[in-house]
Amino acid sequence: MLEIKEKDTSCRARNALMTLPHGTVQTPAFMPVGTAGTVKAMFHQSLEDMGYELILGNTYHLYLRPGMEVIRNAGSLHKFTTWDRNYLTDSGGFQVFSLSSRRKISEEGVRFSSHIDGSYHTFTPESVVEIQETLRSDIQMVLDVCTAPGISKREAEEALKTTMSWARRAKKRWENRVEGYDGKLFSIVQGNFYKDLRKRSVEEIIELDTPGIAIGGLSVGESKDEFNEFLAYTAELLPEEKPHYVMGIGTPDYILESVEHGIDIFDCVYPTRIARNSTVFTRDGLIALKNQQFQFDDQPIDPTCQCSTCQRYSRSYLRHLFKAGEMLGPMLATEHNLFFLANFMKEIRQSISEGRFLEYKKTFTEAYYGAKI
Amino acid sequence: MLEIKEKDTSCRARNALMTLPHGTVQTPAFMPVGTAGTVKAMFHQSLEDMGYELILGNTYHLYLRPGMEVIRNAGSLHKFTTWDRNYLTDSGGFQVFSLSSRRKISEEGVRFSSHIDGSYHTFTPESVVEIQETLRSDIQMVLDVCTAPGISKREAEEALKTTMSWARRAKKRWENRVEGYDGKLFSIVQGNFYKDLRKRSVEEIIELDTPGIAIGGLSVGESKDEFNEFLAYTAELLPEEKPHYVMGIGTPDYILESVEHGIDIFDCVYPTRIARNSTVFTRDGLIALKNQQFQFDDQPIDPTCQCSTCQRYSRSYLRHLFKAGEMLGPMLATEHNLFFLANFMKEIRQSISEGRFLEYKKTFTEAYYGAKI
Ligand SMILES: [Zn+2]
Ligand SMILES: [Zn+2]
Repeated sequence: MLEIKEKDTSCRARNALMTLPHGTVQTPAFMPVGTAGTVKAMFHQSLEDMGYELILGNTYHLYLRPGMEVIRNAGSLHKFTTWDRNYLTDSGGFQVFSLSSRRKISEEGVRFSSHIDGSYHTFTPESVVEIQETLRSDIQMVLDVCTAPGISKREAEEALKTTMSWARRAKKRWENRVEGYDGKLFSIVQGNFYKDLRKRSVEEIIELDTPGIAIGGLSVGESKDEFNEFLAYTAELLPEEKPHYVMGIGTPDYILESVEHGIDIFDCVYPTRIARNSTVFTRDGLIALKNQQFQFDDQPIDPTCQCSTCQRYSRSYLRHLFKAGEMLGPMLATEHNLFFLANFMKEIRQSISEGRFLEYKKTFTEAYYGAKI
Repeated sequence: MLEIKEKDTSCRARNALMTLPHGTVQTPAFMPVGTAGTVKAMFHQSLEDMGYELILGNTYHLYLRPGMEVIRNAGSLHKFTTWDRNYLTDSGGFQVFSLSSRRKISEEGVRFSSHIDGSYHTFTPESVVEIQETLRSDIQMVLDVCTAPGISKREAEEALKTTMSWARRAKKRWENRVEGYDGKLFSIVQGNFYKDLRKRSVEEIIELDTPGIAIGGLSVGESKDEFNEFLAYTAELLPEEKPHYVMGIGTPDYILESVEHGIDIFDCVYPTRIARNSTVFTRDGLIALKNQQFQFDDQPIDPTCQCSTCQRYSRSYLRHLFKAGEMLGPMLATEHNLFFLANFMKEIRQSISEGRFLEYKKTFTEAYYGAKI
């Protein structure tokens, strides 16, 4: 499913084409997050125009609302939401751990109460594959046990054991998927911040031989150095021919770091979430449009940006929209941030293609983070 | 400024072209309300695509936020907001009476406290013309005294006296507008629900001879019969050659009634406000997308509608967006409602052109209100 087209000679960065049921995806690719089947404040048409080929949906949210009956009635998550390109859906595990107030893990699966109405539900490795089969997810993720940095090795080992047993059960269920559905299953490397556990996790996952592999349990509150160290360590162990996915990555520095280590896809709510709070990307770093300094600023967010927001609107007007609490503010800022990232990924792929990724990384980082790095 | 093109033979409905500084407006026309320089949840590009040629801005809001310094810096409300077609701005009077908690009317003007930060400000007939001159409004309104239904004749007469005195002062200030600015001043007929006062108001306004005339003090809580009666009575007194404007009209029945009596332009927050609460127009009447009945409904809002929402999205998905509190719900519903109204106005103009407006009114009303009328 992954056709590697170009490799950077001085690091593990690579350009590839990932073939999925709803079309080919050029990687490395950033995936905007459409939690409830909508990338917040974005028309699907805009995402298409920007060239996004793969977006993310959250299984936990979609399962609870609108619910599987509604999706089944529509035929797929694609038909329901009118997004005819690819969807990656997560396993719901992370949301169970972060959103649900009550949950209980057993060998069987995880029982939890809905953050919407308190009702009780159970996710098992098998049921989560089945839900994603109903969604017709182009990439689906195995249910895993998420752990926070700082837990003991014993706890991490227990969690990993459960994760791996669940991955094997998920794979079995996925092999028996309905005819006509060809979504790809990705397993998830865990092992917390213990290198030997990470290594063991990768070894078992290689044996399991799912179509793709994700690195889980990173970008969960650890330091940047720790992230870099564990990303590099884990990524190097992965089989080159499979797609590599890291969850929760959406800032330019983490994206560049991930690409350098051969990661193909990543997602994060960060670019869309900060936009709704008036914070936008520029080549010179983030700016918060709400700030007083933009009151009379008739420049676009970023004079080099070709997005529809920058083609038309001034910082002064955008500041006004945010100060007045007008919906058009988040709409325009989200449009810009996602365009900016789509363009950033194009530049990254171009630099890999021209064998100058590390140079691009350095140039971009210096302009973007300036003295901060 | 008004070129009457076609007149219906069986009522006062007419098609006209209204020439304003930012282009010609085909009337009868509905004006979407862009209170703070943004029609809530709408890209300006969409309004252009729908063919809107004139939208409304609220002087009270714009004066308080972003404030005149910011507008002056941008050059005009048009440049600030990137809307290069026409703006009508109200006088701010209505908002002073409805939004400000503290206000005091004198012969000089009205002193009020901002609903945003409590700061005190004074609007006079002259200052309000000046503010709208800074905005470069294509149509500007005189400051008037708004009254509610049910007040005594004596109170209504007092209010009218002040309104007329303010109108004369406004006209004088407007005649001394800066060179290069050619926005048109509209005076406002008041007189509450007393016919002789209405008549006196119209007579004085005819003498004042402003480029356009608005009928104020309607659609302020009176019964529909009372509205129809006072609309018909007042509209018949107006000079035919001037543009006629009624404020606060946005439902199909009131629009049809107004057009029948020779009204050319009207505005209301209604179509955009109900959209944000999931209520949308269809040819068969309003529907609330949040309702349970649409859970599995894969039809568009209105199968006959050509808007971008109806071309793409199902009621089932829209319901989900509203239930989940997603911004895309208001965005798509607003898009539909404003497209629906733009199309409705086109059909009205077409029916006038073909001499069958009253027939169109009857057919539309029967389908839309069904047994309700
Ligand atoms: Zn931009
Ligand atoms: Zn529509």
